[in-house]
Amino acid sequence: MATSDLPPSLTADPGISPAELHLAARNHGMPLEALGLDVTPVGLHYLLIHYDIPVIDPATWRLTIGGAVSHETRLSLDDLQARSSVTRRVTLECAGNGRARLSPRAISQPWLNHAIGTGSWTGVPLADLLEEVAPTDAAVELVFTGADRGVEGGQPQAYQRSLTIEQARRDGVVLAYALNGAPLPPQHGAPVRLVVPGWYGMASVKWLQTIEAVTEPFDGYQQTTAYRWRDAPDDPGTPMREIRVQSMLLPPGVPDFATRRRFVPAGPTPLSGRAWSGHGPVTHVEVSTDGGATWVPAQLDPPPDPHAWQRFTCTWDAPVGRHELCSRATDAAGRTQPLEPEWNLGGYGGNAVHRLDVEVTPS
Amino acid sequence: MATSDLPPSLTADPGISPAELHLAARNHGMPLEALGLDVTPVGLHYLLIHYDIPVIDPATWRLTIGGAVSHETRLSLDDLQARSSVTRRVTLECAGNGRARLSPRAISQPWLNHAIGTGSWTGVPLADLLEEVAPTDAAVELVFTGADRGVEGGQPQAYQRSLTIEQARRDGVVLAYALNGAPLPPQHGAPVRLVVPGWYGMASVKWLQTIEAVTEPFDGYQQTTAYRWRDAPDDPGTPMREIRVQSMLLPPGVPDFATRRRFVPAGPTPLSGRAWSGHGPVTHVEVSTDGGATWVPAQLDPPPDPHAWQRFTCTWDAPVGRHELCSRATDAAGRTQPLEPEWNLGGYGGNAVHRLDVEVTPS
Repeated sequence: MATSDLPPSLTADPGISPAELHLAARNHGMPLEALGLDVTPVGLHYLLIHYDIPVIDPATWRLTIGGAVSHETRLSLDDLQARSSVTRRVTLECAGNGRARLSPRAISQPWLNHAIGTGSWTGVPLADLLEEVAPTDAAVELVFTGADRGVEGGQPQAYQRSLTIEQARRDGVVLAYALNGAPLPPQHGAPVRLVVPGWYGMASVKWLQTIEAVTEPFDGYQQTTAYRWRDAPDDPGTPMREIRVQSMLLPPGVPDFATRRRFVPAGPTPLSGRAWSGHGPVTHVEVSTDGGATWVPAQLDPPPDPHAWQRFTCTWDAPVGRHELCSRATDAAGRTQPLEPEWNLGGYGGNAVHRLDVEVTPS
Repeated sequence: MATSDLPPSLTADPGISPAELHLAARNHGMPLEALGLDVTPVGLHYLLIHYDIPVIDPATWRLTIGGAVSHETRLSLDDLQARSSVTRRVTLECAGNGRARLSPRAISQPWLNHAIGTGSWTGVPLADLLEEVAPTDAAVELVFTGADRGVEGGQPQAYQRSLTIEQARRDGVVLAYALNGAPLPPQHGAPVRLVVPGWYGMASVKWLQTIEAVTEPFDGYQQTTAYRWRDAPDDPGTPMREIRVQSMLLPPGVPDFATRRRFVPAGPTPLSGRAWSGHGPVTHVEVSTDGGATWVPAQLDPPPDPHAWQRFTCTWDAPVGRHELCSRATDAAGRTQPLEPEWNLGGYGGNAVHRLDVEVTPS
């Protein structure tokens, strides 16, 4: 693809532009050493925030659930917290993870592979609230509107996404008011957000203000322009939903500050990491210590929650020299991570095998 | 300065390299809308972490204070928390803030201007502990060693910095175990870190393991190689300490997602921001709405704590069109922010006036 063929929002430049760097400074990834923790502490979980973080007073916040429903309702935070709650451990990943590894790439948040995190989310099952408001027979989707406002693709907008009624009723879909046992922090959608387990993060609308049942499929910007699998600007594409099968290695040894290259002492070295998929549990993970030429199976833990990452482990007898470590997961749907990134227009869903460059030194 | 004159750790490339992007993904800045908050929530405060975040069990953690002292001691977290504590609001800034605006620039964390944050830190005054251990007359400095280990400039090392005995005894220097009323999160140095108000963040050693009184000035990497004001590779330079006078504007209006350009409706527009300096209180702040051609004084609040940022405000009758907003602070020492970035080898201490590009639209 020659540079002159590119629509204005793509670049073939391997360097990161000032606008991309601004996004990278605001939105942070999870340092990969946090793969050693079952639950990601607040401040280490990835964040992708389209506009500004709104500051909302929880005392005056209200959620309206209306539109094509039999019983429109307006709930305070107390109203919500008075209902039965569930706590679910959920691994979320940004749809744009891996974008910076593509060429040409969409001009957007330049993620390498850090746009991940696993939270323990507490809230009210959306299915319970839908039971209360009773969408009419004409309702086909629910539109979720956040308090975050800005401009995108030239269109002023609040951040909005929809789910079909069936998707919204799935087990695990919650209106969350707590993360890791504490009230949501501002950057994660305080006071209340949607969490859609198994789907890329764009579905989990933060700073929720309204839920509206609609009788036609929602055609807002984040549904029909952004977050679609597309091969070319004139391709209408297909909607992004489930997180592609993915795995990452906990980096062994210690890093060089500037290059992030790893130094590992020679000898038996425990390797571990996490694997997940939105298409069902991960069924096996393989590890390579020679850049993907050969693979050995890793030990794999069962998922602690249906949409939480699974731990894998193995031992490597590390010989002196430079090595490329890789991990590759396969899920219950039979999907396996590709060896190389697969290009798409928006730079979405990058799940190529994780590669770590390590230098093993005499111990 | 021609590219061929550059030492290997400098680049004149305006694009950001993969290693720099990796650093930008790990270390996050404060989204500037958080300038609207007196205290920065956990997860929005800037982070600069040289190596990996260590995970330390607070139950088994011990701090040794030894070396040239009369009463060496070893403290548990309970021991520390049993002592008198203070809570101080402190604005911290990374020494490398603004580095990405320089050309050529050092290859390191490519900060624009987001490497800031204000925390409410609770801990034990270091002066009290020094009273207990009683450094000998021969002691000239204290060396603080963190649990974070890695390689830098080819040297394997734990992160270490020193203070003179006099600097360590200053009011406000604390061994902190809480941030914003909760135990330190892992990424801010749990269970205990040093906080040195008024100085760039490199002095505030995280994951503190030992404090050693030494009889010769400390010559470790982070003291004598990194974090120095230097003009050339063969310049030994001078140590970095106090934060240079600085101010930033809370971005008005709403952003474009990809470009971060701001859109503001025409008419009277409240502007505000924060200003701080390690050389004493900020005494006045000026605001420009024409890119620095003309300036008007802003209203300035007194500091809520000697080393916490001060709020400034003014009103702008915003006319339709494109404008560059700027703020410029002057401190009690008579230092004023420069209009343009001032180059130095490490890319440190960037405090050029903050510039915001806004488009005012008919309201």
